[in-house]
Amino acid sequence: MSKRDFLTPIGITLGFIMVMFGILTNAGLDGVTSFMQVSSVVIVLGGLAAALLVNFNFNEIKLTFRVSKEAFKKNDMNVHELIQLFVRLSERARREGLLALEAELEDVEDPYIKKGVLLAVDGIEPDVINDILSAEITALEERHYRGRTIIEKAGEYAPAWGMIGTLIGLVLMLQSLTDPETLGPKMAVALLTTLYGTLLANLVFLPMAGKLANKTDQEIFAKQIIIEGVIGVQSGQNPKILEEKLSAFLSEEDKLRVEASEKQEAEQVKEAANEA
Amino acid sequence: MSKRDFLTPIGITLGFIMVMFGILTNAGLDGVTSFMQVSSVVIVLGGLAAALLVNFNFNEIKLTFRVSKEAFKKNDMNVHELIQLFVRLSERARREGLLALEAELEDVEDPYIKKGVLLAVDGIEPDVINDILSAEITALEERHYRGRTIIEKAGEYAPAWGMIGTLIGLVLMLQSLTDPETLGPKMAVALLTTLYGTLLANLVFLPMAGKLANKTDQEIFAKQIIIEGVIGVQSGQNPKILEEKLSAFLSEEDKLRVEASEKQEAEQVKEAANEA
Amino acid sequence: MSKRDFLTPIGITLGFIMVMFGILTNAGLDGVTSFMQVSSVVIVLGGLAAALLVNFNFNEIKLTFRVSKEAFKKNDMNVHELIQLFVRLSERARREGLLALEAELEDVEDPYIKKGVLLAVDGIEPDVINDILSAEITALEERHYRGRTIIEKAGEYAPAWGMIGTLIGLVLMLQSLTDPETLGPKMAVALLTTLYGTLLANLVFLPMAGKLANKTDQEIFAKQIIIEGVIGVQSGQNPKILEEKLSAFLSEEDKLRVEASEKQEAEQVKEAANEA
Amino acid sequence: MSKRDFLTPIGITLGFIMVMFGILTNAGLDGVTSFMQVSSVVIVLGGLAAALLVNFNFNEIKLTFRVSKEAFKKNDMNVHELIQLFVRLSERARREGLLALEAELEDVEDPYIKKGVLLAVDGIEPDVINDILSAEITALEERHYRGRTIIEKAGEYAPAWGMIGTLIGLVLMLQSLTDPETLGPKMAVALLTTLYGTLLANLVFLPMAGKLANKTDQEIFAKQIIIEGVIGVQSGQNPKILEEKLSAFLSEEDKLRVEASEKQEAEQVKEAANEA
Amino acid sequence: MSKRDFLTPIGITLGFIMVMFGILTNAGLDGVTSFMQVSSVVIVLGGLAAALLVNFNFNEIKLTFRVSKEAFKKNDMNVHELIQLFVRLSERARREGLLALEAELEDVEDPYIKKGVLLAVDGIEPDVINDILSAEITALEERHYRGRTIIEKAGEYAPAWGMIGTLIGLVLMLQSLTDPETLGPKMAVALLTTLYGTLLANLVFLPMAGKLANKTDQEIFAKQIIIEGVIGVQSGQNPKILEEKLSAFLSEEDKLRVEASEKQEAEQVKEAANEA
Repeated sequence: MSKRDFLTPIGITLGFIMVMFGILTNAGLDGVTSFMQVSSVVIVLGGLAAALLVNFNFNEIKLTFRVSKEAFKKNDMNVHELIQLFVRLSERARREGLLALEAELEDVEDPYIKKGVLLAVDGIEPDVINDILSAEITALEERHYRGRTIIEKAGEYAPAWGMIGTLIGLVLMLQSLTDPETLGPKMAVALLTTLYGTLLANLVFLPMAGKLANKTDQEIFAKQIIIEGVIGVQSGQNPKILEEKLSAFLSEEDKLRVEASEKQEAEQVKEAANEA
Repeated sequence: MSKRDFLTPIGITLGFIMVMFGILTNAGLDGVTSFMQVSSVVIVLGGLAAALLVNFNFNEIKLTFRVSKEAFKKNDMNVHELIQLFVRLSERARREGLLALEAELEDVEDPYIKKGVLLAVDGIEPDVINDILSAEITALEERHYRGRTIIEKAGEYAPAWGMIGTLIGLVLMLQSLTDPETLGPKMAVALLTTLYGTLLANLVFLPMAGKLANKTDQEIFAKQIIIEGVIGVQSGQNPKILEEKLSAFLSEEDKLRVEASEKQEAEQVKEAANEA
Repeated sequence: MSKRDFLTPIGITLGFIMVMFGILTNAGLDGVTSFMQVSSVVIVLGGLAAALLVNFNFNEIKLTFRVSKEAFKKNDMNVHELIQLFVRLSERARREGLLALEAELEDVEDPYIKKGVLLAVDGIEPDVINDILSAEITALEERHYRGRTIIEKAGEYAPAWGMIGTLIGLVLMLQSLTDPETLGPKMAVALLTTLYGTLLANLVFLPMAGKLANKTDQEIFAKQIIIEGVIGVQSGQNPKILEEKLSAFLSEEDKLRVEASEKQEAEQVKEAANEA
Repeated sequence: MSKRDFLTPIGITLGFIMVMFGILTNAGLDGVTSFMQVSSVVIVLGGLAAALLVNFNFNEIKLTFRVSKEAFKKNDMNVHELIQLFVRLSERARREGLLALEAELEDVEDPYIKKGVLLAVDGIEPDVINDILSAEITALEERHYRGRTIIEKAGEYAPAWGMIGTLIGLVLMLQSLTDPETLGPKMAVALLTTLYGTLLANLVFLPMAGKLANKTDQEIFAKQIIIEGVIGVQSGQNPKILEEKLSAFLSEEDKLRVEASEKQEAEQVKEAANEA
Repeated sequence: MSKRDFLTPIGITLGFIMVMFGILTNAGLDGVTSFMQVSSVVIVLGGLAAALLVNFNFNEIKLTFRVSKEAFKKNDMNVHELIQLFVRLSERARREGLLALEAELEDVEDPYIKKGVLLAVDGIEPDVINDILSAEITALEERHYRGRTIIEKAGEYAPAWGMIGTLIGLVLMLQSLTDPETLGPKMAVALLTTLYGTLLANLVFLPMAGKLANKTDQEIFAKQIIIEGVIGVQSGQNPKILEEKLSAFLSEEDKLRVEASEKQEAEQVKEAANEA
């Protein structure tokens, strides 16, 4: 959802503002230029790219871009709506049989729910449905993991290459100690790569990998509810019990909110009835 | 419970007192002001916020506040009382049937116990009850984990941003080595962000995340006893065996204390009987 | 057992002797006093206490003392004797029935074995016995873990607070660089907190947490043999097979020693018979 | 496949180019020679070899070379083709019996698929087939792990030996402080071993170990699909359901691409038919 | 096997040669003596011993010596020979019954195989055999783990005590800054303990713990094949299928080698037959 797309660039921008702020309050605008060292940027990014090229193959690198986009764009599933959907499906299946569910699927966009219900409609056994849907969760986990892992590794290699850049700078500086006036600026430049590496890791790579991991967890959580729901619907479970079972995945607060909104709806229905 | 609410602020206050003490004994009151650098605070907190914004979405950030409150306010369950409750329920269920348990529920406040017993009263099968109650544990674990994870990440990013602040300060300082008199104070200021970051991590974030993790463990522990109890009650298990089974969760000391207090009660009953 | 009580204080004393030795060989007796800085001790211990207060609640802090004592005082179970006990119980149970085992229990001190055998005598089913005894292992593991975890966390926070103390000292020192003569001693004092923190962690907290973890492992190991034994006895397993099964937990060396001592005993019996 | 063979040397070369670039932009060609210290190279590589000799035995060291080659040369399995193969096998097996599959095996090169299908043709039970094929996965995992583990350990020991070299250099430098002019160059040389160690770890060993781990994951993933497929074929599963089951391992994108290419093929067939 | 005994001392010797080389190429023979500081050695080894005494009890310390010897001396099992043995046993058992296997055991030295086959000969049920043999694996794992864990902990405490020694030296040095000429040598001495600690950890303790862990893995791997084999023999499994099952544990290369040598043998047999 779009909310998510915003937070990542906002965070990264805020991070850079903080760095600017730190420089400006101490050294004014002149200070900023001294923090822009093209060669230091090249070493850190180039070295990072080198390590990632050794660590991954082309397919995995392509996958990263796809997984990143997939993860930052996709909607939250609303757990409460999911539960209502399966309660509705379960009631209809008990009244009119499993075949009637096909009509219900028209409004459902999620391909995973669609697939699960179609398998149920086709009369596939619950165990096989569970196998198929679980295999998709495993594949999704594996795929997300592989896409995320490059970003995590980038968060590991970036500070290391920052340090390599600093070591190169220090060695060069120490070899020409005879000129003590340039000592400070040279060491300052040497430290820049460490700053770049640390910044990249702690503002971009590690937090992004963290967000991707959270997204994966949430998708899997929703998909597990869907599996429970599909199997409950297919085995003709009592809709009340199915609702109870799926509601266990809601938190206390969610439940209170749901109850409150249901009461409100009920009242609106009553009012509407009264008015009529 | 309130005891818990106290320890966290007491600990944090004590930590700041220690820092003050360290400054005052070495440099007197004048030293304190030099440790207050608004710009350093802004860099560490701003950078930390930036990293967290990249790492989490709005729902998770909201969840943190809710989980934190939930965790610091909730009561310990008393394991011994829990066991007595289920022994009582199990005896009544064997005497008067499962339906009679509904009356017992009036005094029970805990919604989890209530739900479990109501499921048993409704005649739901043990396996399904186990599924439903276990799913709630999983959801609670997942929710607490997600709420806690931000605080843990804050404990990771805070020292990193402290280091970023120090690197910025060092680079600036090294570029103007020509003025050796300001060298010391400039480096002192540079080190402040590292101090802030380390202090935040080791006094606030990491210990708070630790406490939340402990709380989660204890809640899950209690909920597992409740599942055992509900299923024992529903399957009409012998109350003695149920007590034995649940008592296994008590420690030796707890058991000795329980026995001692039971003996005392028995004696008081006897005395009362004698007096009567 | 007492052997264990000795090693911990011996180790800690030896550690301090090593530190003393390091100071004395380099700076003589005068050096020692300069390593005693009350304010540095206060910062490290106070900060450590602050972090632990935030991280734990009163019950857990009390538990630490109890678990520590429990762990340092308790006896090793002798695996060989355990096996002999269960072989004896199993033989008697096959000859005279499970009820006859009650008489055997008089010499057994361990409450866990007692409980297990009494459950068998009471005719509880093996599955239930296994559940009850395993739940106690889980509870013991949980309890020990919670008690140990504070000591482990102390081992993490101590060096961090040592570093915080050093950072405070460094900032103060750098602010008064104008007085170069006091530079060295001030930095020396600043480093003391790091020394204290590292020493506490690597001589006291981490090794003690390690010992507690080892103790827990050993207790669980013994308790698992007891479960196997009790269930074997109750299900009327052949004593020979039971012995074979339990002996699998012995190491090769243990077995050789056991065989050697059994042969010796057999010879002594023979000799005694010859003499008679 | 050859694609993979390229990326590793390209990455390593790029890494060295970055280091060169860092030196050249700061110190010109003269700087480069000062980074070539044979004795520093000898210490890091020799010490690393020493640690690995202590850590591993000859068989494991030989295994490393074999596993590395195996991993960098082997082809990706195309998951889509795998699925098509098993659908074809399953259709033929249902039409003509399991014995007919032997003819299909002529085009199959992969020894793992061959073995699995031959076991099915021989009429071995599904459980036994699963045992045998899974044992091979376990053995492959174990073998790859052992081969990879040396490279991982090299990534741990290399920076440690870099630090040991630097410590030796620092001690030597500090002992002859009387000659302040050589101070800088000596310290520069001392830092070189740290640079070498960090570079080796973060450009060569850790990324290579990462690539090997990815390769192992992918091979196991493919082999698990094969097990599912073989067992599906042998138990005479409906080819449609088998395809559904195996397709769960494909990602959404893969599926779209597959559908697109199938539609295209279908059209080409139609066009061909029209033309005819 | 003896090959293993060699690699460890060779590695440790090579490591010390590297250190010597580093000193000699930079400072000649005079440099070496300055690296021998008895008091520094005493602090690191004494402090390490102190931490280990706190962390372990006498039994565990004794166990370390036993496990170390056991691990460095024991033979590799040849997986191919193991498989041949069980195929032979399985053929004989099907021809002549399980009792005939006792004769085959005379050539078998390994006590674990002996025990397993004797249990099969005694007619113990497969489940019980599996329990007994698996319990021995668990006990072996536990025992090796406990013995190895001291060496691992030594690898953790050694650098920490090296740092403690360096901190003591630094504090002493900083307190007498008035004498700038001794500054360098004093700091050199202070750094020596860090050098000792790092060297001990990365040349001796960590690699040795790594080798012990590898050894344990290999023994468990072989013992798991033995369990499979014994149970296959006892349940009268077809020797061909048993061979197939056990061969899954071989790598592709092992299999090719085995096939090649079998072909060669077959040819030799044929030649011999022709000659005859």
